[in-house]
Amino acid sequence: MIPDAVQPRIVLASASPRRIELLKNLGLIFEIFPSDLDEIVEVGHTPAQVVAELAESKALRVQSLIQTRGGEPARQDLVIIAADTIVVFEGDILGKPVDRTDAIAMLSRLEGHRHQVYTGVHILSVSAQANNGSASAHHDVEIASVEFRSLSLSEIETYVDTKEPMDKAGSYALQGIGAFMIDKIEGSPSNIIGLPLVLTTRMLRRCGIKIMGE
Amino acid sequence: MIPDAVQPRIVLASASPRRIELLKNLGLIFEIFPSDLDEIVEVGHTPAQVVAELAESKALRVQSLIQTRGGEPARQDLVIIAADTIVVFEGDILGKPVDRTDAIAMLSRLEGHRHQVYTGVHILSVSAQANNGSASAHHDVEIASVEFRSLSLSEIETYVDTKEPMDKAGSYALQGIGAFMIDKIEGSPSNIIGLPLVLTTRMLRRCGIKIMGE
Repeated sequence: MIPDAVQPRIVLASASPRRIELLKNLGLIFEIFPSDLDEIVEVGHTPAQVVAELAESKALRVQSLIQTRGGEPARQDLVIIAADTIVVFEGDILGKPVDRTDAIAMLSRLEGHRHQVYTGVHILSVSAQANNGSASAHHDVEIASVEFRSLSLSEIETYVDTKEPMDKAGSYALQGIGAFMIDKIEGSPSNIIGLPLVLTTRMLRRCGIKIMGE
Repeated sequence: MIPDAVQPRIVLASASPRRIELLKNLGLIFEIFPSDLDEIVEVGHTPAQVVAELAESKALRVQSLIQTRGGEPARQDLVIIAADTIVVFEGDILGKPVDRTDAIAMLSRLEGHRHQVYTGVHILSVSAQANNGSASAHHDVEIASVEFRSLSLSEIETYVDTKEPMDKAGSYALQGIGAFMIDKIEGSPSNIIGLPLVLTTRMLRRCGIKIMGE
């Protein structure tokens, strides 16, 4: 038997427990390296531009943090996975709520309606031979739709008081308590949770990473 | 303040960890009472009939087990929640796989295609005053579509060897490792996982059960 080539060092540029869980489900071993980037949305950019740019910024930030940390030269190829997810409703971009009132306001807009979820994925592949910090990039954006049933203010307040909405784009989680509101989705559930797995698998394989035996 | 009416005793007629988790997410306190029913599918019945009948049989079986257990008369209303989920592809009903080979065969049919998931929910509401075992029933069937990406035999085998498919209708889990195969869904994710939550919430409220503060 020919031994497998060494798997590159994989870094997830996110501290999101949902993204960590999704990536673990692919059977990958990876490091968690949050970018600590302020998620500043450029005015006038489309939702797809916003998530693409934020995902790219997170990936580049983590690449720079890793490379300026110095130490001995890398002996392993490096793959950095970054993603950004936003909720879009009536042309407005809804990120994470700033407080309880903001979460209640977002959910009051979304209830009884359909909205879109955009996730941008940006993957940087840095060869161990490259000393100049150059990397090849793969990036894409995936969109899904989510339809909320009608909700009373009391239901929204009860949900917000569980604290689940507080660190999530659009103020809800598809896979948690928030499931009680979701009438229907159209698209990839993992996209809505924060990391579209079919897309990410395809991109990672292009970087030479083995997933599910392939 | 007027105190809330006493919540009925709630029993889930299922041992499925996914259904238990989904119901817990609604914030309900309930007992788990598996029906231990053989899931026999009647030949010639439609998928919707099959899940409706199996859900009803599970609910009635648990009602009978609880009532024949005797003891002192019930002082609390009783609500029994039962559900049955199947996967339907090209007119065939796919239940749980019997072994590894069966799971591989099912996934080899589903890969690259779209299939349907049917969940029947049957809720029995038994009043504490009813001594003759009579109950009012609420029941409904919900359908969702799932689209798998193309999979190689090696990917299917690697997935089956995780054992995740073994106790699941259609041999996969939407929310687990199986997410790597799911290109797209159309419908309620909780339906595909095994208990459609918007439908179940609506039915439980008709039985006087408070959910999310309402």
